[in-house]
Amino acid sequence: MIPESFQDYVKRQREVIDHALHAWLPAPPVCPPLLAEAMNYSLDAGGKRLRPILVLAAADAIVAAADRAPGAAASSTQAHGLALPAACAIELIHTYSLIHDDLPAMDDDTLRRGRPTLHVVYGDGIAILAGDGLLTEAFALLAREPRAGAEGDLAVRKLRVIERIAAAAGALGMVGGQAVDLEAAGTTEIPGRTRPSLDARGLQAMHAMKTGALIRASAVSGAIMAGGSDAQLAAVDRFASEVGLVFQIVDDILDVEGAADQLGKTAGKDAADDKPTYPLLFGLEQSRRLASEGIARAEAALGEAGLAENHLMNIARWVLGRKN
Amino acid sequence: MIPESFQDYVKRQREVIDHALHAWLPAPPVCPPLLAEAMNYSLDAGGKRLRPILVLAAADAIVAAADRAPGAAASSTQAHGLALPAACAIELIHTYSLIHDDLPAMDDDTLRRGRPTLHVVYGDGIAILAGDGLLTEAFALLAREPRAGAEGDLAVRKLRVIERIAAAAGALGMVGGQAVDLEAAGTTEIPGRTRPSLDARGLQAMHAMKTGALIRASAVSGAIMAGGSDAQLAAVDRFASEVGLVFQIVDDILDVEGAADQLGKTAGKDAADDKPTYPLLFGLEQSRRLASEGIARAEAALGEAGLAENHLMNIARWVLGRKN
Repeated sequence: MIPESFQDYVKRQREVIDHALHAWLPAPPVCPPLLAEAMNYSLDAGGKRLRPILVLAAADAIVAAADRAPGAAASSTQAHGLALPAACAIELIHTYSLIHDDLPAMDDDTLRRGRPTLHVVYGDGIAILAGDGLLTEAFALLAREPRAGAEGDLAVRKLRVIERIAAAAGALGMVGGQAVDLEAAGTTEIPGRTRPSLDARGLQAMHAMKTGALIRASAVSGAIMAGGSDAQLAAVDRFASEVGLVFQIVDDILDVEGAADQLGKTAGKDAADDKPTYPLLFGLEQSRRLASEGIARAEAALGEAGLAENHLMNIARWVLGRKN
Repeated sequence: MIPESFQDYVKRQREVIDHALHAWLPAPPVCPPLLAEAMNYSLDAGGKRLRPILVLAAADAIVAAADRAPGAAASSTQAHGLALPAACAIELIHTYSLIHDDLPAMDDDTLRRGRPTLHVVYGDGIAILAGDGLLTEAFALLAREPRAGAEGDLAVRKLRVIERIAAAAGALGMVGGQAVDLEAAGTTEIPGRTRPSLDARGLQAMHAMKTGALIRASAVSGAIMAGGSDAQLAAVDRFASEVGLVFQIVDDILDVEGAADQLGKTAGKDAADDKPTYPLLFGLEQSRRLASEGIARAEAALGEAGLAENHLMNIARWVLGRKN
């Protein structure tokens, strides 16, 4: 179902992204060595690079659609170049969120991608700072030169991307979702406040903030940098919203089914933490059906905007079929 | 030495800044209430608003210089409007840095501005997230509309400000300085690594990153938004660099001399923590002389660029004379 050419595509994008991440992240001697080491430890932990690949694939999809339309604009190479800082910035932000989420004060995870989590190795203080550093450097990267070029509105595109990514990562997005999750999981106990419990609707809203928002911002950022129209941005956003939902359902299923060695993190942790999950609320069967329905809606969203013939749908299928 | 008109100026700016901060920060119901409460707890803790006032005063100084030059451009009101998002963003970033620095994993402070620190009230998890949220919202605010206006290069100015602020707050600035401080203070112990010790030069470099960089970015951001020339930006940067140095020397002196009730935080904490300070390395007398020399150089930097006749120098004197 996932073509071999897509495997090659993913491999190529990963190389480009990893190279750019290391070229752009502050390094010693100007960056304090311990901090640089800590940031790189998490960045090099062998992540899938799903989000940055989504950024680049969305940019490619816009260019491919333009190629088929009269007056085709940017080439795929140009679009990649314009979208690459956004791709890297989103991976920096994703990595920071994992570091902070793993802290004892939050989810208290000691294993991530098969290795000890950052705070286990460097201590909580340096782990907090490494996260802060990655988050901040993401925005430095997004605002860097060039600010003008063949695209007359390049500076405006960059500002739109910064606003979109910050909104997705902030109090109304990822950080907000983690706060709701933390409160519902009862990790944080505040005198005089009852611990809220999440129903199916609340669970979905929490994940839409915590995971969905940044996945949507990934695809939309790529489309913005490639000069997508408003209609194209809306379609890409709807597509990515479904991908985000599928991502979370599969995540919950893997937590029930997965073995720790394949998952690279502690399996069964959600149940042990008494966290609400899709399998818990809907059962495994129905959860799988919900995921497949999401994929179908994702494909429909792309099709309506003439964006179906590219790697975006392969990414959606990858998310559905992933084993870790 | 500090004129009464300056007291009024500071009071007026504080009102404008506080109003804008509350208007712009995400609030319930879209923002999770607990997170919003935590972010506001720290934001409303009665800070001096030194950095945002510096942003606005730098913008004013550029406009005042233009008024005396032929073909004067923006009015003071316009410059204020353009610089206000940067002023608020920097206060959000400053507030986040205090929250994270106070955590048990870092400086472990329980009192700040006379009130219990955020993590004491809301727990470490929510405190980490409130900091993350404030930092991220700062960049959302900086990238917001308007992106085009009477100033043709408004979008480019905003990108320059974002890059400057992110660089100052990131791994080569504030976060990097805190990492160096943490390592030197021995709070973080990593197997096989010797704890480094800071000499006078190392101390100065650490503070230039940890405190100085954001103070410089404050003044420079205001000057960029008001359309300052490269020469003006360089002068404002040199000025603010001296102000940052004076700020830190006075901070260290207050820690030795100040009473906890006036300081609003635990006095004598640096010595108790075995942290290197200016009084420790140079003695009190010599530390005071270093601060006065910094003020003189700050004034010279402004004078050379024709930027002396405004409130910037009053801010420098305020920093020298502050009691908390």
